[in-house]
Amino acid sequence: MSTGLFLGRFQPFHNGHLEVIRCMAGQVDKLVIAIGSAQESHTPEDPFTAGERHLMISESLDAAGINNYHLIPIVDINRYSVWVAHVRSLVPPFEIIFTNNDLTARLFAEAGIEVRRTELYDRERFSGKIVRRTIAAGGDWKSLVPAGTAGVIGMIDGEKRIRELAGEKQ
Amino acid sequence: MSTGLFLGRFQPFHNGHLEVIRCMAGQVDKLVIAIGSAQESHTPEDPFTAGERHLMISESLDAAGINNYHLIPIVDINRYSVWVAHVRSLVPPFEIIFTNNDLTARLFAEAGIEVRRTELYDRERFSGKIVRRTIAAGGDWKSLVPAGTAGVIGMIDGEKRIRELAGEKQ
Amino acid sequence: MSTGLFLGRFQPFHNGHLEVIRCMAGQVDKLVIAIGSAQESHTPEDPFTAGERHLMISESLDAAGINNYHLIPIVDINRYSVWVAHVRSLVPPFEIIFTNNDLTARLFAEAGIEVRRTELYDRERFSGKIVRRTIAAGGDWKSLVPAGTAGVIGMIDGEKRIRELAGEKQ
Amino acid sequence: MSTGLFLGRFQPFHNGHLEVIRCMAGQVDKLVIAIGSAQESHTPEDPFTAGERHLMISESLDAAGINNYHLIPIVDINRYSVWVAHVRSLVPPFEIIFTNNDLTARLFAEAGIEVRRTELYDRERFSGKIVRRTIAAGGDWKSLVPAGTAGVIGMIDGEKRIRELAGEKQ
Amino acid sequence: MSTGLFLGRFQPFHNGHLEVIRCMAGQVDKLVIAIGSAQESHTPEDPFTAGERHLMISESLDAAGINNYHLIPIVDINRYSVWVAHVRSLVPPFEIIFTNNDLTARLFAEAGIEVRRTELYDRERFSGKIVRRTIAAGGDWKSLVPAGTAGVIGMIDGEKRIRELAGEKQ
Amino acid sequence: MSTGLFLGRFQPFHNGHLEVIRCMAGQVDKLVIAIGSAQESHTPEDPFTAGERHLMISESLDAAGINNYHLIPIVDINRYSVWVAHVRSLVPPFEIIFTNNDLTARLFAEAGIEVRRTELYDRERFSGKIVRRTIAAGGDWKSLVPAGTAGVIGMIDGEKRIRELAGEKQ
Repeated sequence: MSTGLFLGRFQPFHNGHLEVIRCMAGQVDKLVIAIGSAQESHTPEDPFTAGERHLMISESLDAAGINNYHLIPIVDINRYSVWVAHVRSLVPPFEIIFTNNDLTARLFAEAGIEVRRTELYDRERFSGKIVRRTIAAGGDWKSLVPAGTAGVIGMIDGEKRIRELAGEKQ
Repeated sequence: MSTGLFLGRFQPFHNGHLEVIRCMAGQVDKLVIAIGSAQESHTPEDPFTAGERHLMISESLDAAGINNYHLIPIVDINRYSVWVAHVRSLVPPFEIIFTNNDLTARLFAEAGIEVRRTELYDRERFSGKIVRRTIAAGGDWKSLVPAGTAGVIGMIDGEKRIRELAGEKQ
Repeated sequence: MSTGLFLGRFQPFHNGHLEVIRCMAGQVDKLVIAIGSAQESHTPEDPFTAGERHLMISESLDAAGINNYHLIPIVDINRYSVWVAHVRSLVPPFEIIFTNNDLTARLFAEAGIEVRRTELYDRERFSGKIVRRTIAAGGDWKSLVPAGTAGVIGMIDGEKRIRELAGEKQ
Repeated sequence: MSTGLFLGRFQPFHNGHLEVIRCMAGQVDKLVIAIGSAQESHTPEDPFTAGERHLMISESLDAAGINNYHLIPIVDINRYSVWVAHVRSLVPPFEIIFTNNDLTARLFAEAGIEVRRTELYDRERFSGKIVRRTIAAGGDWKSLVPAGTAGVIGMIDGEKRIRELAGEKQ
Repeated sequence: MSTGLFLGRFQPFHNGHLEVIRCMAGQVDKLVIAIGSAQESHTPEDPFTAGERHLMISESLDAAGINNYHLIPIVDINRYSVWVAHVRSLVPPFEIIFTNNDLTARLFAEAGIEVRRTELYDRERFSGKIVRRTIAAGGDWKSLVPAGTAGVIGMIDGEKRIRELAGEKQ
Repeated sequence: MSTGLFLGRFQPFHNGHLEVIRCMAGQVDKLVIAIGSAQESHTPEDPFTAGERHLMISESLDAAGINNYHLIPIVDINRYSVWVAHVRSLVPPFEIIFTNNDLTARLFAEAGIEVRRTELYDRERFSGKIVRRTIAAGGDWKSLVPAGTAGVIGMIDGEKRIRELAGEKQ
């Protein structure tokens, strides 16, 4: 049985994430989806709590018929030398890491994990930053995210939160 | 839609846990199962990592046909005054807490969460401590846990780990 | 009995703070003044320790005849999701928060606390940044702060500290 | 001007504390009263938050006509080698420490602070432990504490909290 | 070139440590001596700071003519799952761990490090606990430690510190 | 006996460090060399672990015939008010600090330590930043560092690590 790991901040979970996950979930028996920077929320770059992001992702994947995954929050540990050990202790055993980040690739490769590069899906249209800006500007953000994400943002009045945070000069 | 929260250390996940969860999962639309003391492992009382426990639980619940749950590790934060806020930030929104612990009940009740007491299933036979002791003593521990737990313990050679840790005089 | 909370860094405590506090202290029975970023000191933006700031404020308020207040240091906790719980555990119960910061307003409002906006007193002349720069430049900073602040800065040779820190290229 | 420091956990503030403070406040111009273990609450030994203890003390000292004090919470830092520096950064400058604890005396003496031993006032009758036990047992605890403490415990239903925590077997 | 790691608390460094190190230093090109629980000091079990222990060890090994070693303090990190990564990041690369502790052996073995058991040298006579007790009781402790240790304890008046700490009832 | 302290990040240890240390080591009986930001590694500014830096320095100083030193990693503690106490607890007693940093000079001077300014050796040619850039650009970096540093960088394939990190857009 093969297991792969995919790390993201998912602020918020968007259509690009969904397509990448659909692809990875087809390559392994189980995909571990790690919600990074789990301790962050209520900032312009990280507006949603880990719990809110968890719900966005699980609702969206369920609706998409993807169900061979584990979904796990990971709080940051700002020491790269112990970061791989930190991640490994919190998630089920895995032997593949999917990433496009060179540092992540290097750290996991040094620990003997197989690294596979991911293709980003239409990065011009789909990124967390673009979604957050579109929400702040009152644009058509719902076309950028799965219905599961839109539902959670609606439930918690996330549009208002993002607009207020965007107005912040911290 | 109703959502409930159930907290445990699951060291390891046993048949008592499974029966309690089956009961709670029947009372709510979604059950959030929080793996507490997620940072602990490799001690006599907490031998398994959060990732190993995650796998035990998800394998066992899948086999039992229970699938209306979220499974989320929670690291300890040793300040009761912020603990409810800590838990809430890491899990999807919930309005019911299932617990038998008076302190947990008090803290969540003060935060306006409905508290429901759980019935422990045959506590004489099924507890984490009894399972760990039975493993350390070489007894018939496999009858105390679901096949999912037994599979994970076998995969990671958890019997040897527990026996070695039991021999520790730290 | 009504109690309000006012948060500031007070680096250092200046005439603008004094006027705002005089106004708030007239609106409530007790005013909780929280000294934020209490762990910081000896940097260009945060030159004074929490203890030094405590003394500046209490000396100044005593001289101004304001005495219906509690003065409490609060160390930062860099997780907004638990920040309100953190503050609440360290200060006496309060039902009003005075703030001009949108994020602070949002976080406390979500927790059910009444938010009142404060008017900043002559922001052009009175701000911590202006006072620190005036001290660093050897200008007439004593006209910007109450005598209590000036006394503490004199006692600890704070002028020299600020000038040295301003020269730092960290 | 002389300033002294007195450290306590004040769980809760009782008549013995009041008499010791009355004595110390007569020996110095200003007394810094530090509320130790400020991060603790909701345990059998530390039932009250720092904010609740702050209110108990300030109400009691005001009623007793003692007003030459600063009241400051101190969170634990579990490294004795930096503890004195930690305390000094959070409180106004002081040159005397009042304590009966040999370790505290040694640490502050090594840092050049004058140590004065305190007399405990009728230790047989007045201690935090005795007060907590008397509350848990439903005894006459109000005769052991100032009215300020009794008022705060009443306001937050502290009797119920202590009884519930006393029943805890964590 | 072979490098080995030896971990100890060295509270204080005694003749038993010296003999074990002499033996290990003869088996490898370089011996990394890690001073564990480096953050601890001023308690009955851990009276000396990491810096004081560093000096005891280096003075003693220099006098013994042992010089193929690195001496490195390691602060505790209370999570066994990341502990090996923590140690590895702080010390030069090594391929052998010398230990008698089963948990340490297991954790390093899982990380692919060769484990060699050490022989404790006359454990009945030489242990940190015995040395501390002998100092507290005013006995002949100088016969239990190298002259380097005795010199440091003399320089910092460590006898008085230990006796005072032994009298503590925390 | 005189002991001096010198603090650096040593990312990596270069010829300028060596000359400054040679000079300082000639002024005191023992020189404590503290490896700062010990917790950092794998970033563009801090590519090497504390253990790797330890080995670079000890190999280089041994080859240079300098042996009157202690070499000690110091993890950051981001509170200047306790920083001197933190450093003092981790290193042997010292009475002189060698530094060119104004904040460091101020903090240690306030603690009663003698401050001596260091001369930086040919800062135009020798700085950690220049060495890292020269490695990233594939230039002649080996002429900038002692053979001990070059040996360690070769052993861990540090050139590749720096080049990969330089390509990172975090």
